Amino acid sequence: MQIIVAKKAGFCFGVKRAIDMAFDLAKDTKEGVYTLGPLIHNPQVIEKLRVQGVTPIENINSANNIKALIIRTHGVAPNIYEETMKKGFKVIDATCPFVKKAQRYAQTLKEEGYQVLILGDKKHPEVQALLGFAGDNVIIVNGDEPIPPLSNRVGIIVQTTQPIETMKKVVCDVIDLAKEVKVYNTICDSTTLRLKETKELAEAVDLMVVVGGKNSSNTTQLTNLSKKICPKVYHIETADELKDEWFKDKKKVGITGGASTPQWLIDDVVEKLKEISFER
Amino acid sequence: MQIIVAKKAGFCFGVKRAIDMAFDLAKDTKEGVYTLGPLIHNPQVIEKLRVQGVTPIENINSANNIKALIIRTHGVAPNIYEETMKKGFKVIDATCPFVKKAQRYAQTLKEEGYQVLILGDKKHPEVQALLGFAGDNVIIVNGDEPIPPLSNRVGIIVQTTQPIETMKKVVCDVIDLAKEVKVYNTICDSTTLRLKETKELAEAVDLMVVVGGKNSSNTTQLTNLSKKICPKVYHIETADELKDEWFKDKKKVGITGGASTPQWLIDDVVEKLKEISFER
Repeated sequence: MQIIVAKKAGFCFGVKRAIDMAFDLAKDTKEGVYTLGPLIHNPQVIEKLRVQGVTPIENINSANNIKALIIRTHGVAPNIYEETMKKGFKVIDATCPFVKKAQRYAQTLKEEGYQVLILGDKKHPEVQALLGFAGDNVIIVNGDEPIPPLSNRVGIIVQTTQPIETMKKVVCDVIDLAKEVKVYNTICDSTTLRLKETKELAEAVDLMVVVGGKNSSNTTQLTNLSKKICPKVYHIETADELKDEWFKDKKKVGITGGASTPQWLIDDVVEKLKEISFER
Repeated sequence: MQIIVAKKAGFCFGVKRAIDMAFDLAKDTKEGVYTLGPLIHNPQVIEKLRVQGVTPIENINSANNIKALIIRTHGVAPNIYEETMKKGFKVIDATCPFVKKAQRYAQTLKEEGYQVLILGDKKHPEVQALLGFAGDNVIIVNGDEPIPPLSNRVGIIVQTTQPIETMKKVVCDVIDLAKEVKVYNTICDSTTLRLKETKELAEAVDLMVVVGGKNSSNTTQLTNLSKKICPKVYHIETADELKDEWFKDKKKVGITGGASTPQWLIDDVVEKLKEISFER
């Protein structure tokens, strides 16, 4: 059985940066280190951080011994940021720089008087944070549902992990409804490259294993994309979930992972697959 | 033989306005009335205007008895407008108000530091005039050829008679190349409605007759669109060009006309077709 691992699988720049910041902080500050929500969408990494004394909390009032608080990769709305700064404890902003850019663009569009349209998952923390920058005249679309009536001047920003095809579809739909459309392509290059590579890999193999948090938006997208192309696709968080029978008669297996999937989880999957292949 | 005439065939608002302005002027000013280039792209209308004393000239130095000069529907670049104003004769600006809007948007994009991308036919006078408003950092695309490398901030305006599908395609292509894209949909509603109606008509008939200037960009587009759908399509300027044999065995004939096609040319075609149908 041939095993092919996507080159772009695993941590993106923003996630790696945030993890490094958290581990560095945990080294210096022995207790009272928290993250506002899980730092990234990967339960195994969050568990490793917890062992090092970095604990996720739901809001800044959920703990009373906060010494240092880390803002997660997805960022927060300006009002939450301000509230946090007032508390007096150390604040480490691990918002992904590409997300930060999207936030600035949302604010620019608001200041320029555009109705801001955000393409993304309205429940996702990145989109929730963007909302805080986009003002009151804002609309969230997911690319599947029809777009409601719009103002004549619409500004578009996109959750950094959306597929570019969905963005293009939404822009075309908006062109039918508004006379002036300003688009910031805030999809990060890592997303586009990862989706492109996953597509190519899914086309070339009999079975795809997508490794990453079940709560990870971009990992779920890799799964959904693979399912459109490859006859068998499994989304797992760890190698323990792999089952021998999945690979019966399979000749080529592709492995990819989300932006929040650490290399060691991918390596574990590769090792387990080598064993399965060897035991046949 | 059933004859169906498109409801939107014939003069658009901007053309009608320009023709009215020219005839009004010819009534008051008995000689020395000129248009800078043909007022609209319809040779039969230009001939009628010529009979009334309104003559097209290539440039403001082509005649030495100019009393009044009409700027045609497609507009002119600001430098030509200024040069004209300095000459001291009466200037009537018959630029279509929708074209005027596109010119203002081109200037706005230039002032905001965008690389301006114009979707249109680079030889068309409307596009030539838009160029004058768009500054030096400008690019013209026709929607067929690949788009060359672009700046990171691109502003898009569109020749008012382009199909919206071409515009959407170009916007999507630009999204692949630039991070910030500001789009003014400067296609006039009349164009979109006319193309939509022509498409529906072409689907419903055995043969399409498209009436209008051979030099008319939007009439040519109606012809090209019809050819993609309908088995037989003829682009004619006048009823004289119709040939009996075209209509042998035809049950349903559709007629449409461009934005610069006068009603009387369409009526002539309908009359001639009724005769052909009756004589069978």
